[in-house]
Amino acid sequence: MSILVQKFGGTSVAGLDRMRQVQQKVQAALAQGHKVVVVLSAMSGETNRLLDLARQFSSRPPACEQDVLLSTGEQVSVALFAMLLKDAGIKARSLLGFQMTMHTDSDFGSARISSIDCEKLRAMLDEYDVLVAAGFQGLDPNGRITTLGRGGSDTSAVALAAALNAEGCEIYTDVEGVFTTDPNMCDKARKMPRIAYDEMLEMASMGAKVLQIRSVEFAKKYNVPVHVRSTFSDAPGTWVTKEVPEMEAVLVAGIAYDKNQARCTLRDVQDRPGVAAAIFGPLAEAGVLVDMIVQNTSEDGRTDMTFTISRGDLERTQELIAELNKDLQAREVTFNTQVSKVSVIGVGMRNHSGVASTMFKSLAAENINIHLISTSEIKITCLIDDKYTELAVRTLHDAFGLEKHGAVCS
Amino acid sequence: MSILVQKFGGTSVAGLDRMRQVQQKVQAALAQGHKVVVVLSAMSGETNRLLDLARQFSSRPPACEQDVLLSTGEQVSVALFAMLLKDAGIKARSLLGFQMTMHTDSDFGSARISSIDCEKLRAMLDEYDVLVAAGFQGLDPNGRITTLGRGGSDTSAVALAAALNAEGCEIYTDVEGVFTTDPNMCDKARKMPRIAYDEMLEMASMGAKVLQIRSVEFAKKYNVPVHVRSTFSDAPGTWVTKEVPEMEAVLVAGIAYDKNQARCTLRDVQDRPGVAAAIFGPLAEAGVLVDMIVQNTSEDGRTDMTFTISRGDLERTQELIAELNKDLQAREVTFNTQVSKVSVIGVGMRNHSGVASTMFKSLAAENINIHLISTSEIKITCLIDDKYTELAVRTLHDAFGLEKHGAVCS
Repeated sequence: MSILVQKFGGTSVAGLDRMRQVQQKVQAALAQGHKVVVVLSAMSGETNRLLDLARQFSSRPPACEQDVLLSTGEQVSVALFAMLLKDAGIKARSLLGFQMTMHTDSDFGSARISSIDCEKLRAMLDEYDVLVAAGFQGLDPNGRITTLGRGGSDTSAVALAAALNAEGCEIYTDVEGVFTTDPNMCDKARKMPRIAYDEMLEMASMGAKVLQIRSVEFAKKYNVPVHVRSTFSDAPGTWVTKEVPEMEAVLVAGIAYDKNQARCTLRDVQDRPGVAAAIFGPLAEAGVLVDMIVQNTSEDGRTDMTFTISRGDLERTQELIAELNKDLQAREVTFNTQVSKVSVIGVGMRNHSGVASTMFKSLAAENINIHLISTSEIKITCLIDDKYTELAVRTLHDAFGLEKHGAVCS
Repeated sequence: MSILVQKFGGTSVAGLDRMRQVQQKVQAALAQGHKVVVVLSAMSGETNRLLDLARQFSSRPPACEQDVLLSTGEQVSVALFAMLLKDAGIKARSLLGFQMTMHTDSDFGSARISSIDCEKLRAMLDEYDVLVAAGFQGLDPNGRITTLGRGGSDTSAVALAAALNAEGCEIYTDVEGVFTTDPNMCDKARKMPRIAYDEMLEMASMGAKVLQIRSVEFAKKYNVPVHVRSTFSDAPGTWVTKEVPEMEAVLVAGIAYDKNQARCTLRDVQDRPGVAAAIFGPLAEAGVLVDMIVQNTSEDGRTDMTFTISRGDLERTQELIAELNKDLQAREVTFNTQVSKVSVIGVGMRNHSGVASTMFKSLAAENINIHLISTSEIKITCLIDDKYTELAVRTLHDAFGLEKHGAVCS
């Protein structure tokens, strides 16, 4: 039995006409001889409507009940789409989280999948040609409804593909695939035919926003080939797969950026064990997501500590740091919201030197000053003034030859 | 553990303000020392909205998928109400059909309850003070969602009360109880403090519309005392219970009517075995609900056959009868839509004579002609011209002294 998983997001199921386009994709897959598991999100706008409703009823809606509420969004989508398929004479049925069964932990609102009853699903696929599965929802060990967090339907789809050992997992979305960088910012941006899981993880966390990051982790773990493509065209999109030798020949696969950054610097903090913990412990407890952290070598037992956060967390962070600094006694605390993050990403840089220096030289040539530098195995990130973001992205896109198809290192 | 089941309909949960009133009822029950199972319907208008949506997607929405769709209505209600209670510091949780578990058959759209996991529910009541249960929904033996038909939440509530051996089942609605007749039609109509299950069954089927008829059957079967009362007042409503001696002392408990009637008469049909089957078999197959059927003694091997149907089924019935009459060869077929049905109901008439003659005399005194008469053990029904409906109801209400509290037979 050849099984294909197809996932469609909220804009793809928003109304009858859109769902008819989805139906065509499903019928095309059936015509190719696949059994199809279609994973659907809530119609676009529906999740926000339900969240607004919850906020009317509770100042802080309890996550377990909010999940009961939100999961109705996907339930409506799958019931309607199953009706459409049945009307077209296709053997189809809807499938909710508790019916799959999509077992998760009890972390309501952002639950993690633990297992799927694949025997049950395979038995259903003997009887039906299409299973219309509700994305985003699962069932915890106590039999309560959970949801997987924003974009969780991607993870549902990849998990189902992994459990059913599917041929692949197609993620249909409103973009044509994964681009070397944001096409709105750089008109030379090119759709990548293929990207490695690790590269995609770095792209996604930097705001590429095409796939939920957990779904990529899941795909990597179970080696599920994921095809990101457009609902509104038949053109191939981008395959997200394990690394293959050709990928390593490419120095830089893409450029990511994030304008939603704020920087905090504590000058002349005491350089003693436990200082970092004293800062970042309370921030984590307050739910502030700290992104880059840079600490330089100390002089005279004092050091500078810099980190970045989302701009939305700025006020909370300012309050916390003011409080903490009664103990820390930094000479000065500065905040800067006029910064953004630019990264070059590529598995190829694991085996090649020179990427960092090319990046720094290119930025310098445009007079773009670098505030912070942070590196990982397959990524180099610079914090710069945010007015230079577009220029930096275009400069780096040129510098690494990304407009050329399959650009390789020199 | 003393358990009280409280059920609230669509108008009682339509919005935050209404739900706060429901919350007061629940808190009052808690204050009396009960554990509470609250059964909620979908917010008023929601089920119709979802049905309209289904019709956009399918000319004949398959019942199994329609149930998946419709059950989201109750799911939204219970999630929101559970939030409200938790916000008020009450130990509460929502409960869906598949979590109760409310086992039903697979008759999607009008499933019948087969069993409830009461041990599971009792264990939950050890942990929580309030269970907020979704009405109207169940789970079939294959693990698919079912619904119990319009008004099914009443049946959910009574079934839960029966399974949990609850003190009682309160059905909150937008009327104050069950009246001796329609107060809009007869200003002497009086709220009954108590009515027998069998009387309620006859009242309900005649359009009293306070309780789903199945819920009353269920209550009767398991002897669940049901208290029908208003969400918007604290006044006691009407208890629906098993027969007690005082009830039998009352000749007539209430007057019911139904204006949505049409009459069909086939004159001079051959009076031979199988004629009734030849008429009513095809009508039943076509889904026409036949109400009264009257056949008079035959003369010369020919007879008149009269029956009544809902006016909405008139056209379909006319077509069918025209077709059938090619074989039946009735001399004449007549239809009359200007008729309505008036009934007097009471368990007391089992043991007392004279009710029928009082009814006929009273109608005759007002010059109201009777087209058809049909009787059961606890009900006498007359079909009359519909222009006389109000007059007949008021006349009979007076004739049987129903405006007097606890009126007894003479």
